[in-house]
Amino acid sequence: MKLQFWFEFASTYSYPAAMRIQKAAAARGVEVGWRPFMLGPIFFAQQGMRDSPFKVVPVKGVYMWRDLERICEKHSIPFRRPHLFPQNGLMAARITTFLPQEQRPNFVKAVYQANFVHDRDISDPQILHAAARRAGLDPLEVMGTMNSEPIKEKLKKETSDAADRGIFGAPTFVTEDGELFWGNDRLDDALDWAVRGTLRPNSQN
Amino acid sequence: MKLQFWFEFASTYSYPAAMRIQKAAAARGVEVGWRPFMLGPIFFAQQGMRDSPFKVVPVKGVYMWRDLERICEKHSIPFRRPHLFPQNGLMAARITTFLPQEQRPNFVKAVYQANFVHDRDISDPQILHAAARRAGLDPLEVMGTMNSEPIKEKLKKETSDAADRGIFGAPTFVTEDGELFWGNDRLDDALDWAVRGTLRPNSQN
Repeated sequence: MKLQFWFEFASTYSYPAAMRIQKAAAARGVEVGWRPFMLGPIFFAQQGMRDSPFKVVPVKGVYMWRDLERICEKHSIPFRRPHLFPQNGLMAARITTFLPQEQRPNFVKAVYQANFVHDRDISDPQILHAAARRAGLDPLEVMGTMNSEPIKEKLKKETSDAADRGIFGAPTFVTEDGELFWGNDRLDDALDWAVRGTLRPNSQN
Repeated sequence: MKLQFWFEFASTYSYPAAMRIQKAAAARGVEVGWRPFMLGPIFFAQQGMRDSPFKVVPVKGVYMWRDLERICEKHSIPFRRPHLFPQNGLMAARITTFLPQEQRPNFVKAVYQANFVHDRDISDPQILHAAARRAGLDPLEVMGTMNSEPIKEKLKKETSDAADRGIFGAPTFVTEDGELFWGNDRLDDALDWAVRGTLRPNSQN
């Protein structure tokens, strides 16, 4: 059984999802595909939005930061509200797109931690260099892919693939039979569906 | 301990919340305040939106209907996708505003069922009349309040009160210490917070 985990580096709720998904999936024997994509073009195409919805609608932003804080506390995930929001995750997404699946989780988590724990600018090559090193990768090899034309194209293709599947936000979990589950708070439902093809009646939500 | 349940009759996710909240709250000894309000003026004031976000952004609408179907199945809540969406819940909200708290749940649930089980137009006085009767109320007394000026004012006041608390969608659960939880999928978290002032670490989300 496989679950596709579509995430965007600028997405705040993708952070707890990225930190939680490996353990939760392993507990159910579900394999995870880590799929970075860019929400910006999707927000613009679908909603004409040129910024995060949490900036466009400030009252949603106020809620989101408090909600994220509560969620991280609940799951014992370190969290410090970053000064920079939304961040530009394009380079991080390109690097991830270049990596084989097995190398993605550690790099992705290192980038999210740079953003949401250490308050760093994740578009800064030095920060990405450090994240690659922390993930056990060869920074020089990895950094060279940031401006690779085939990788740029591959990420664009992934983004249009996400839109084609009906994705409009992040994180989104997609099961093998094509069910979409939007939001960190749907991770367990998505995993249940991946295993059983239905939702567990006695779980939350 | 008390939890305020802010809902809007046109809101699809308010339906499963209304059907679930009494049992879930009773199990934790939490008292529920049923608070109807109007999302239309709030959507317009905060986002300039003149229609449901599920109509304004069709891809979100496609997701929402499938998601709602799954949620209702999971909780064994009857559901039939209504032909009319979004519905005009103004009259139903006025009637509810007139009712004392103890009479609200049965009437509110009867109206939601008219919408999401029986596919009826809940702005139709005949449908509201039937819902009132089904809820054990005196339909004549109740229907007379639909155009009462004090009730109109009271509902407007409730709506501006909702906006003042930071509410931007429905359902929203508000604890006594002012924490907001948005969405049917946060009902259990909201109840946990109402009881403990924190979230249970081993629960979902």
